[in-house]
Amino acid sequence: MAGGRPGAAPAPSVAAVRVAVRRALAGLPADGPVLVACSGGADSLALAVATAFVTSRLGRSAGLVTVDHGLQAGSVERAAAVAEWAGRVGFDPVEAVPVTVAGRPGGPEAAARQARYQALTDAARRHRAVAVLLGHTRDDQAETVLLALARGAGPRGLAGMPARREVAGVPLLRPLLDVTREQTRGACAALGLVPWQDPHNTDPSYARARVRADALPALVAALGVGVRDNLARTARLLAADTAALDDLAAAALANPPAGSRGSAPDTSAPRGPAPAGPAPDGRAPGGSGVRVGGGLSVAALAGLPGAVRGRVLHAWARELGATPGALSHRHVDALDALVTAWRGQGPTALPGGRRVGRRDGRLLPVD
Amino acid sequence: MAGGRPGAAPAPSVAAVRVAVRRALAGLPADGPVLVACSGGADSLALAVATAFVTSRLGRSAGLVTVDHGLQAGSVERAAAVAEWAGRVGFDPVEAVPVTVAGRPGGPEAAARQARYQALTDAARRHRAVAVLLGHTRDDQAETVLLALARGAGPRGLAGMPARREVAGVPLLRPLLDVTREQTRGACAALGLVPWQDPHNTDPSYARARVRADALPALVAALGVGVRDNLARTARLLAADTAALDDLAAAALANPPAGSRGSAPDTSAPRGPAPAGPAPDGRAPGGSGVRVGGGLSVAALAGLPGAVRGRVLHAWARELGATPGALSHRHVDALDALVTAWRGQGPTALPGGRRVGRRDGRLLPVD
Repeated sequence: MAGGRPGAAPAPSVAAVRVAVRRALAGLPADGPVLVACSGGADSLALAVATAFVTSRLGRSAGLVTVDHGLQAGSVERAAAVAEWAGRVGFDPVEAVPVTVAGRPGGPEAAARQARYQALTDAARRHRAVAVLLGHTRDDQAETVLLALARGAGPRGLAGMPARREVAGVPLLRPLLDVTREQTRGACAALGLVPWQDPHNTDPSYARARVRADALPALVAALGVGVRDNLARTARLLAADTAALDDLAAAALANPPAGSRGSAPDTSAPRGPAPAGPAPDGRAPGGSGVRVGGGLSVAALAGLPGAVRGRVLHAWARELGATPGALSHRHVDALDALVTAWRGQGPTALPGGRRVGRRDGRLLPVD
Repeated sequence: MAGGRPGAAPAPSVAAVRVAVRRALAGLPADGPVLVACSGGADSLALAVATAFVTSRLGRSAGLVTVDHGLQAGSVERAAAVAEWAGRVGFDPVEAVPVTVAGRPGGPEAAARQARYQALTDAARRHRAVAVLLGHTRDDQAETVLLALARGAGPRGLAGMPARREVAGVPLLRPLLDVTREQTRGACAALGLVPWQDPHNTDPSYARARVRADALPALVAALGVGVRDNLARTARLLAADTAALDDLAAAALANPPAGSRGSAPDTSAPRGPAPAGPAPDGRAPGGSGVRVGGGLSVAALAGLPGAVRGRVLHAWARELGATPGALSHRHVDALDALVTAWRGQGPTALPGGRRVGRRDGRLLPVD
């Protein structure tokens, strides 16, 4: 499959992308192809060519999918050209998949993303692929973090794009989160590949394009070139923090709750609702079960650290059918007030219509 | 003490600052004065005049301290003018405290901050004050978060300035973290007060001044006026997350560790190193004690979520005498590698000279 001139040491940018791909592929099952998602832009083109190189050395198969969003003149031809190139360098299977963006929920960027991910996971299942590789770079990650900051997305948004996430049972991997856009461009140039320039990337009607063109350069000018690396590093640290707290919240919501199972219920006594702060035995708070009857125990909730309680309430609201996109921190704060600032206030409404009230020391759906 | 025209409804900006001060004073013990730290700039001047108003209504006493950093021509006169004004509006005690910034560690901003906080806490102890009030606004908080992002300070830095923190036994309160700079300027103007303009605020040799003048306006231009609020909101959420994870790390480091005390050591078996993720009984990971002998158990560390393990290692490194300012994520990562990526590597050095190695399933200081 594709490579540089045989025997020549690859350019540093080419080597950097290959190393990143090799790391991402380590540990993947060998019983199916990996699929590269490739728009033809510099990032995903560099990813594709590196994946072709690495998989051919590893003796494993690689396919490529290019999604045609149908949003720009010439998009059919662009997709066909990417697919033609992919077949030429040895990808198999190769698909150019047209999708319909109109009519999906959210803004234009969210709708395009949803359509694209659905097409990618559908293709992965069709071809029994073990993973889909996405070309997001460290610069994309820095932009994502700034965009999340700007919309007040909280720690979860600031954690940025994960290096690995399952969507519809398909692992989506982002091997290039430590590779810079300069490196992907450099890799394409070193290999004589001419990337497609997505006009959306420079269209100021897109928030991401404004961040890329104006906001990040202003931050770099004010604070130095380390800003992009530091944004990406922050995302990594926040991802770890968020994962740990999510696990604690999941443990607190686990069913059956701690102390309510088994034949020796008395052993559960010291495991009841924890006081705020670490339990005296050095065990973490947050693990005690909060479920009671069809609701949540106010006392157990009050014993959780605020950061865990907020996550428990958020997860429980989703469980009750709250519309995910519409569920905001204001709804969670209102649920929290039923626990920590209760003055007999009535039920609070969740997006989607469900209401939650407090009765007999419990939070309960009341409709 | 100071107020607007008697009987007239205060301007909205004046009311906003007063409400914020009233909230901050609620719950403070009544057996001592509060001290306002006031440079004479718009933020701390608005804070001072609101504190004078609120404390006079509450019948409690308020003092004022203005710190002369001696860094600018005319600083002695500026401090004297602030003190003279403070005495006139009824503050008692009033102090203008000169400090020496040169010769302190860190950059010029850090050195000035350290000198200022020491002068403030010294004054608080001299006057048996119950708290020191600081004039940082939502805009300062947004700048702090961006600066923390830029230097890759991680979740702790991004959590920004706390609304309450004890330094040397003295509570430092920041009542204005939800008040904007526009409101403090508006409050001063509405009350006919002319704030001092600190030339450092517009001196581009200071990173904060560059953020204020260039980086934040660029973010607002790219992403909308909600950016400042969202940065401050992010700081609040991250402060809660960080506090919860710090508690878990403190619990894991607590001495004596779980399972190592009492007369029935066998009961410690089910409390041994937890697997990654929540324990099967729904309890949180992270609470198991990690201390063993004079070091930390590798197995117990490996069972902690990464976000908790990093905090445990950071705290332990400080305990071993690592220089706080020099202890970076690279040192913590090297300690972490002794746990999670051990291939027989030798000890790793902490700033300050202490070295830590792995032996017999433990991390131990080796010098």
